[in-house]
Amino acid sequence: MSEEPRARRAGGRAARQALRAHAVAEKVPFITRTLPPLEVLSEEGISLIEENADTILDEVGIEFRDAPDALRLLKEAGADVQEQLVRFPRGLARSIVQSMAPLEFTQHARNPENNVHIGRMSTVLAPAYGSPFVRDLDGGRRYGTIEDFRNFVKLAYASPYLHHSGGTVCEPVDLPVNKRHYDMVYAHMRYSDKPYMGSVTHPQRAQDTVEMSRILFGKDFLEDHCVILSLINANSPLVWDATMLGAARAYAEANQGVIMTPFILAGAMSPATVAGTAAQTLAESLAGMAYVQLVRPGAPVVFGSFASSMSMQSGAPPFGTPEPALVLYILAACARRLGVPFRSGGSLTASKVPDAQAAYESANTLQPTILAGVNFVLHAAGWLEGGLSMGYEKFVMDVDQCGMVHAFSKGVDLSPNGQAIDAIKQNGPGQHFLGSAHTLANFETAFYRSSVADNNSFEQWESEGSPDAATRANAVWKKTLAEYEPPPIDEAVDEELRDWIERQKASFPDSNV
Amino acid sequence: MSEEPRARRAGGRAARQALRAHAVAEKVPFITRTLPPLEVLSEEGISLIEENADTILDEVGIEFRDAPDALRLLKEAGADVQEQLVRFPRGLARSIVQSMAPLEFTQHARNPENNVHIGRMSTVLAPAYGSPFVRDLDGGRRYGTIEDFRNFVKLAYASPYLHHSGGTVCEPVDLPVNKRHYDMVYAHMRYSDKPYMGSVTHPQRAQDTVEMSRILFGKDFLEDHCVILSLINANSPLVWDATMLGAARAYAEANQGVIMTPFILAGAMSPATVAGTAAQTLAESLAGMAYVQLVRPGAPVVFGSFASSMSMQSGAPPFGTPEPALVLYILAACARRLGVPFRSGGSLTASKVPDAQAAYESANTLQPTILAGVNFVLHAAGWLEGGLSMGYEKFVMDVDQCGMVHAFSKGVDLSPNGQAIDAIKQNGPGQHFLGSAHTLANFETAFYRSSVADNNSFEQWESEGSPDAATRANAVWKKTLAEYEPPPIDEAVDEELRDWIERQKASFPDSNV
Repeated sequence: MSEEPRARRAGGRAARQALRAHAVAEKVPFITRTLPPLEVLSEEGISLIEENADTILDEVGIEFRDAPDALRLLKEAGADVQEQLVRFPRGLARSIVQSMAPLEFTQHARNPENNVHIGRMSTVLAPAYGSPFVRDLDGGRRYGTIEDFRNFVKLAYASPYLHHSGGTVCEPVDLPVNKRHYDMVYAHMRYSDKPYMGSVTHPQRAQDTVEMSRILFGKDFLEDHCVILSLINANSPLVWDATMLGAARAYAEANQGVIMTPFILAGAMSPATVAGTAAQTLAESLAGMAYVQLVRPGAPVVFGSFASSMSMQSGAPPFGTPEPALVLYILAACARRLGVPFRSGGSLTASKVPDAQAAYESANTLQPTILAGVNFVLHAAGWLEGGLSMGYEKFVMDVDQCGMVHAFSKGVDLSPNGQAIDAIKQNGPGQHFLGSAHTLANFETAFYRSSVADNNSFEQWESEGSPDAATRANAVWKKTLAEYEPPPIDEAVDEELRDWIERQKASFPDSNV
Repeated sequence: MSEEPRARRAGGRAARQALRAHAVAEKVPFITRTLPPLEVLSEEGISLIEENADTILDEVGIEFRDAPDALRLLKEAGADVQEQLVRFPRGLARSIVQSMAPLEFTQHARNPENNVHIGRMSTVLAPAYGSPFVRDLDGGRRYGTIEDFRNFVKLAYASPYLHHSGGTVCEPVDLPVNKRHYDMVYAHMRYSDKPYMGSVTHPQRAQDTVEMSRILFGKDFLEDHCVILSLINANSPLVWDATMLGAARAYAEANQGVIMTPFILAGAMSPATVAGTAAQTLAESLAGMAYVQLVRPGAPVVFGSFASSMSMQSGAPPFGTPEPALVLYILAACARRLGVPFRSGGSLTASKVPDAQAAYESANTLQPTILAGVNFVLHAAGWLEGGLSMGYEKFVMDVDQCGMVHAFSKGVDLSPNGQAIDAIKQNGPGQHFLGSAHTLANFETAFYRSSVADNNSFEQWESEGSPDAATRANAVWKKTLAEYEPPPIDEAVDEELRDWIERQKASFPDSNV
């Protein structure tokens, strides 16, 4: 069995060179945290959440709708199945997950230098996912197209601070619903060499993603390497539906990764409390993860959570508020105790534009994401308007923030150079450090330098036309796209991929359902 | 000796009523944290920083410039004094501070309901300090006036999320330099009934603040109640100068609180590393706090830190970057081990306008401020342009963020109502919670509601003219000022204050130095 993905074989050296040309000093394939995670509950508090999740699983149960295979597998494993309602005796779901699911795994990229580690002390940052609209300063808000989709794949590829190409970076609304997944998955494969996510809108589309990945990586390679991650959402409260379960099954059978994610607006899809929402999320995800492990024991699985609340005024979810941050911290601790990787957080906002609201809310989400030690971070860049819109300028600004969390996550350098005690001894009271040997030796790498922030004098800034952050970000994404060069790919593989897609597309009529 | 401040006696009931009229449900006089502080270094790491601070104090020393009384006191206490350079044998400064300085103290307000606790698990939020300019959307950037000053006092008074009236909320540049402190201190006393800060630009102005406070609170009251807090900055690296030491002395002699704060742009005023900057800050503040304790043992003192880095490109400091956050976390831990309250952080930014840069950077500073457990937070609202400008819209947006950290700091409600397990049992799979009894009972208080964020639908937002956050904040501060009513004050005290100020102003000529 090959240890190298197929598409890599020809393009390897060229790919490495291209990567180096784009790389900055601190380019890393993922963040390895050095700081312990922040805990908002004691061990007793986390135990209580776990017990409540068990109570929900045991006494209320989870519906697996229109999924006879799931009902059969869960019944065989010891669950109490009444019609579509599955009740898990206390501890059953947990013991299935703990005995079978991997604590951590590697998702492989066609360029092995971009392989990401999912779990434990690693944090992987991926773009936002799922917006029907896109927004930029020039064109305002409009439906996304496949050109926008490719643009966001290219922007993510160009960034040293996004480790992953993501999935539905925006909906290419100009393509038919039943065929757009071919172009989306191909865009990730061709315009990036970072890892990617697969289609989940229909089990067949998941199967198509697997087939395309077999062409890209080689059939043998997939059997024991994870190359696809997929986002499987629960239909909260307490329901998993057939479409999502079918996609999860397709990926799990192929030994590919699934993120079992309750998507919960508290007050609507769960109780209006932090502890209630956390327990329900844990119960729902446990049930989903147990199912996946029964489909294929050992298949990579991630505990996912997407939690906000619901505005009584508008019915829309706010973001960047305190309560979802508390839910996130609790569930990250639950995932660690369960022994599975955790997905949550990102750079979330309800703002329609890349303004101060967008930034406060995004920072208020990204900080807990990092401090809690989230392992896979969807929506790390671009998210606007509660996920309805993908913003070009927002993407650039968020990526800059992703750079900052790289620097923060390294923690404190306590080497002699970091302590700098000799520099202080040599300097003395009242003498500035600007020209000291220690400063000159360290300044280039000492501090994170923002690609968007303006730290110039007021006069300098005014002479440049008083641009705000969004205006500066507009220039950054245009320059990045103008300078974009695709990563090399084995031409035979590329041709095989394109031929296969063409045959598939021709084999059935377009449809928008 | 009276336990009630003098100005309070007549206006007490009316003040309470006024407060209730303005108050919201969760109005608290300060934040009492429930979460343990985030630690970025192990105990061994913190010990290393402490040892390095001792090495700096012992081997390099701190200059006390033009301050013969300080040199005399420090020499008597065992320091090695050579001309103006003071070297502290290892452990001396620490032992002076630990044996004399209070672990915590109360700063009294003229309305006792607004007294704040400084230290331990308390966090007190105060407005930004020291800007010569102000900015709003209507007038842009301009020099601050006494009217602006009064406006910010009123805005802070009106907010349930700022606990303190602050000090130089902006420079009233329309008043003479040598007399503006009278009007500033009077504005805090008259237009607010929250605690305030005193003048530090000259020892006599500090003395004037003490005299005015004796009129407001009664002479006896000050002798053993702290009613003034003052910001004393070091002249880093490793220098304390006569003006600041003179102001500190005036306050300490009157048993009033001083915050001994090295203001450090790393790379210029300290080494370009986190650990070096932390050790130097600790050394400088220890020396300053030791001096204050020798002036009057037991006088309230706060360990202060203001740390940023310096942009090699512009010479200006960036904010919201990872390195100052790490410094903050380290020094908060050092303050806890030392046993003194800690001041740092805020809502800092280098942005000139209340845009996305301002918000990312402010959130990136405020989150560590809260998670580290900072006790006194200057610059919690309004700060723009590295402190050169005080923004009206920024103030409103920051105050909203201060509200969020109130909610976060409460932590997780694990009561039966918080766990909500009965609500989940009663609801069942697939049934939304919007109409459930538990939701209806909790919704009003379940989630923090932003006063600035727009969570409406895109269509609703567009129909309102697509306002960004700054535009909405503009309307908020105007409405707040329009609805402002001053807190009641004893008229005799007010008259005595105004008479005293008038006599002082008439007793010497105006000057702008």
